Amino acid sequence: MDKKKGLTRREFIETSTIAGASLMLGNTPNASAAETPANQNIPSRGYAATDESGILTPWEFERRPVGDNDVLIDIKFASICHSDIHQMKGHWGPQQYPQVPGHEIVGVVAAVGKNVTKFKVGDRAGVGCMVDTCLECEDCKGQGEQYCPETTFTYGYPEESSPTGISQGGYSNNIVVRDYFAVHIPESISFQEAAPLLCAGVTTYSPIMKAEFKKGDKVGVAGIGGLGHMAIKLAVSKGAEVYAFTTTPDKAKDILAFGAKEAIVVDDLQKLAPYKGMLDYMITTIPVQYDVAAYASVVKPNGFYTQVGMPEGFALTLSAIGMSINRVNFNASLIGDMKETQDVVNYCANHKIYPQIEVINAEQVNEAWKNVVDKKARYRYVIDAATI
Amino acid sequence: MDKKKGLTRREFIETSTIAGASLMLGNTPNASAAETPANQNIPSRGYAATDESGILTPWEFERRPVGDNDVLIDIKFASICHSDIHQMKGHWGPQQYPQVPGHEIVGVVAAVGKNVTKFKVGDRAGVGCMVDTCLECEDCKGQGEQYCPETTFTYGYPEESSPTGISQGGYSNNIVVRDYFAVHIPESISFQEAAPLLCAGVTTYSPIMKAEFKKGDKVGVAGIGGLGHMAIKLAVSKGAEVYAFTTTPDKAKDILAFGAKEAIVVDDLQKLAPYKGMLDYMITTIPVQYDVAAYASVVKPNGFYTQVGMPEGFALTLSAIGMSINRVNFNASLIGDMKETQDVVNYCANHKIYPQIEVINAEQVNEAWKNVVDKKARYRYVIDAATI
Repeated sequence: MDKKKGLTRREFIETSTIAGASLMLGNTPNASAAETPANQNIPSRGYAATDESGILTPWEFERRPVGDNDVLIDIKFASICHSDIHQMKGHWGPQQYPQVPGHEIVGVVAAVGKNVTKFKVGDRAGVGCMVDTCLECEDCKGQGEQYCPETTFTYGYPEESSPTGISQGGYSNNIVVRDYFAVHIPESISFQEAAPLLCAGVTTYSPIMKAEFKKGDKVGVAGIGGLGHMAIKLAVSKGAEVYAFTTTPDKAKDILAFGAKEAIVVDDLQKLAPYKGMLDYMITTIPVQYDVAAYASVVKPNGFYTQVGMPEGFALTLSAIGMSINRVNFNASLIGDMKETQDVVNYCANHKIYPQIEVINAEQVNEAWKNVVDKKARYRYVIDAATI
Repeated sequence: MDKKKGLTRREFIETSTIAGASLMLGNTPNASAAETPANQNIPSRGYAATDESGILTPWEFERRPVGDNDVLIDIKFASICHSDIHQMKGHWGPQQYPQVPGHEIVGVVAAVGKNVTKFKVGDRAGVGCMVDTCLECEDCKGQGEQYCPETTFTYGYPEESSPTGISQGGYSNNIVVRDYFAVHIPESISFQEAAPLLCAGVTTYSPIMKAEFKKGDKVGVAGIGGLGHMAIKLAVSKGAEVYAFTTTPDKAKDILAFGAKEAIVVDDLQKLAPYKGMLDYMITTIPVQYDVAAYASVVKPNGFYTQVGMPEGFALTLSAIGMSINRVNFNASLIGDMKETQDVVNYCANHKIYPQIEVINAEQVNEAWKNVVDKKARYRYVIDAATI
């Protein structure tokens, strides 16, 4: 991070945390937040990890005051992403605890800072994987804010404005976030069905839209969980003939119901052989080590294969000879930018593309996490924030 | 391998090994081969590995008789590729021994089978990394014979026609090969300078030509050994501004002499940082594990990064998050097809692009192998086959 950018970021944080003298507070049921005077920290409740055990427990903490460019959102639902588990368990590096996970967040705007025109109190809003960037660099202005070297991801990232020193996520009853990093949730989609779009939705939507496949093209999806089942639905909605690869036999029926042409149960890598060189494009959500070259071999030579699942340590081992023989281009994609985040919500609302969800109470979160790891989720757990 | 292809291959081998009644033998100094009656095995001498120690010793063995579609080549020079060492040491899987390595082979045609019109006795000829394929499949007729599922690579591959049961390579005084898999060596390039083109040349030429970069484009080359130094020269000849990345400081001067714009000594991955997102294309010849995402990050987002080096076990571990942040397409390339093999020889002869070589006697081969592993080769050892 260069000095200039560092300064810019500090300046931004200083600016944005200056008192919201004209902070507008709404009449919301979230009394604790609404009763908080401007310029004071916002009390919050959440479920937090306190160590690498992967066990979450209730925790009371504080959010920053609502700055001039911030909105306070009363969270209604937050859904569970495999990334939450990886990060809390330290799979991606050491963490600061207590830490509240969650980056698929929807709720109602309860207060807005004086500069905020994007939202008004009472609006439906969502927050995804990032809560701050410099907004000035080439990436922020070009290929995507998520690539900004200064991105603050939604939980566990250093955040000077946060009373806990790090960003705290959405398994919580409220969140304070810069308006730029919240998106509108149309009335035509339920809160609970909108939540998973904020990460699972945009992470698959972004590369699928960029792949620009044609109607009738053969598109593969590997790893049919929260992300994968959205990838099937999105690719089907774009007219693709979808081939879905899963290691879980009892997902086959669901996969066909999502609109896929074929469900291939890969209990042995040989099951991939009949599809060798057949697909125009493939996206994989597999969040653990696997044989990349074997899976990529189902794509046509010179085609593209996009990794969105992030395994332990982010490490993927691939066979160089396998990749030379399949002649497939491997790339990886990181969530999506803020425009794409709004786009996927609108797109899914307009096209009635809804994730398959199971709403749970907060106290069920540890059991739900175990099910996600054990591949038992069907397909996204959504926490009812009223139970936090 | 399906049954049909298996049969086809057997049929081919039966056909091609039927007596060469009209076998034409030339007046060559290779008395042993020239004196061999048609339809009898050809006596041969070579340097062979007998186990995974990586030590080669002189060995007498037999080649198949010269079939109707075969040529017998009296080998003049054979050069040393890092692949020879990897394969003999079992890095890419268990091997059958004794095995003669070598797939950069040049010499003079000493005999031709009755169907051969491509060569006549006395012609200069070269053999690269493969000596047989089905010649019928989609890959043989399309993207390249090296992708044929039935490819017989030049050494260590099962070959029914070979008296030793496997193909035997070019650290030898002669070779029998189907005419299709030999290329012409123009008079305008020396034998010893032509030898490295048969693998190092074509392996870099193929992806560099396919990359279709424009004059003035910034092209990276990582790993400046036998392949890398050819990659620099070839990319420079196509008008690229070449950035060469090496871990060996004393190669920097040579790199500039090869025509590169910059030589970057990567003694620390931080040395890559100033080049982040700068290059239009990159090729890497690094034949060991390394940080793929860090190196690929010097390529512009959405650009391409081609791996041609093959590490131990062919395994490359890359960071999925690193690849998502750099947004670079990783692919790998396997040698080149037979047309490209002829093309690179002609191209280098016409453009006076010569590998930097050191000619050695056969008895120096073990010392030379050690130097290759220790990164002391400058840049290709070429064995004088007269000393075998």
